Amino acid sequence: MKNLSVVKASHGRAFAVRAGDHIRIATPAGTQVSDTWAFAANDLHEHLSMDHTRSVNSNIFVDLGTRLVSNHRRLMMTVVEDTTPGHHDTLLCPCSSEIYRELGGPADHRSCTGNLHDALDEIGLKVSFTPASLNLFMNVPVASDGSVDRLPPRSVAGDSVVLRAEMDLTLVISACPQDITPINGDARTPTDLHIEIWPGDAS
Amino acid sequence: MKNLSVVKASHGRAFAVRAGDHIRIATPAGTQVSDTWAFAANDLHEHLSMDHTRSVNSNIFVDLGTRLVSNHRRLMMTVVEDTTPGHHDTLLCPCSSEIYRELGGPADHRSCTGNLHDALDEIGLKVSFTPASLNLFMNVPVASDGSVDRLPPRSVAGDSVVLRAEMDLTLVISACPQDITPINGDARTPTDLHIEIWPGDAS
Repeated sequence: MKNLSVVKASHGRAFAVRAGDHIRIATPAGTQVSDTWAFAANDLHEHLSMDHTRSVNSNIFVDLGTRLVSNHRRLMMTVVEDTTPGHHDTLLCPCSSEIYRELGGPADHRSCTGNLHDALDEIGLKVSFTPASLNLFMNVPVASDGSVDRLPPRSVAGDSVVLRAEMDLTLVISACPQDITPINGDARTPTDLHIEIWPGDAS
Repeated sequence: MKNLSVVKASHGRAFAVRAGDHIRIATPAGTQVSDTWAFAANDLHEHLSMDHTRSVNSNIFVDLGTRLVSNHRRLMMTVVEDTTPGHHDTLLCPCSSEIYRELGGPADHRSCTGNLHDALDEIGLKVSFTPASLNLFMNVPVASDGSVDRLPPRSVAGDSVVLRAEMDLTLVISACPQDITPINGDARTPTDLHIEIWPGDAS
């Protein structure tokens, strides 16, 4: 029996996962970016690292088979299933209150950075820094001159990514609140993410 | 009168700079990568951020004119001069003891990550995390499939980059100790960096 959880649109949530667990992150609407972080269960200073993940995989994108590693080069998760065209973003920062201020949004606009810290706070944890996020479903192509674009997701309704946890982790998932740019689809309407977690020996 | 400092090959050093100061980072040999960090002088939790810098400039490379921003989106430095072909790397992690272990190097191999923390320690500062580094002179082209290569620098002897500090900063520069891959040139021999700092109203 899989355990279905909802990460509400524009909100974040933390999950305790064990080595061997599988985590399906699904976008029912097909257009919702998942800003994603992981921390070693026993050490919040060991975190999923985008710069080390790019280094280990010699690639700027996350795709089926990508090894997601920590700042100490330990394998945290592996991408074991992906129904999307792939090329999930590792390059751009999680949105933050400062970004919504730049964009002319309201002062109390929710953000992925805020969601990370709120989600950790809800389970009694705290980090004093914000690691770069893995941005699942986020479509940021890079041109030959290095310029990046911010396009709607290429995923479709019901698409999902499955990650296998390779160590005990605190996973944080934020259903990105961005409603000013089209990064969550042309409708600019954040939607829920569905999370299923099941042990490695079940199916 | 400019103030010339040497960052010795494979070592790091911290510099206190004031808003308006110019900082020239030169590679006399032409082949030395400078892993570069900055922190707000009054708050070590505000640091130069590669993911926010890529976002603000909508580009993965650092070049003449690039605005180098903090995790709070404040402008920390601007690239005001560059004698190299540019496209300085923002993608790959600073080297670390774990990386040299992967590469079969000695257990006590120096690293840019170690140099950052040692350099801060020398001036009585400490951070519990390692921000992604700005890798000046580092040549990491990205192919259309997202794969990255690690090539020798395209700079030549005496090349330099000048940064203008836009706020009071603690700057840390590491002359990358990498001597196993050709990232510091085909000779795989780390060399000194020369640093000049002068106020904005001098020349």
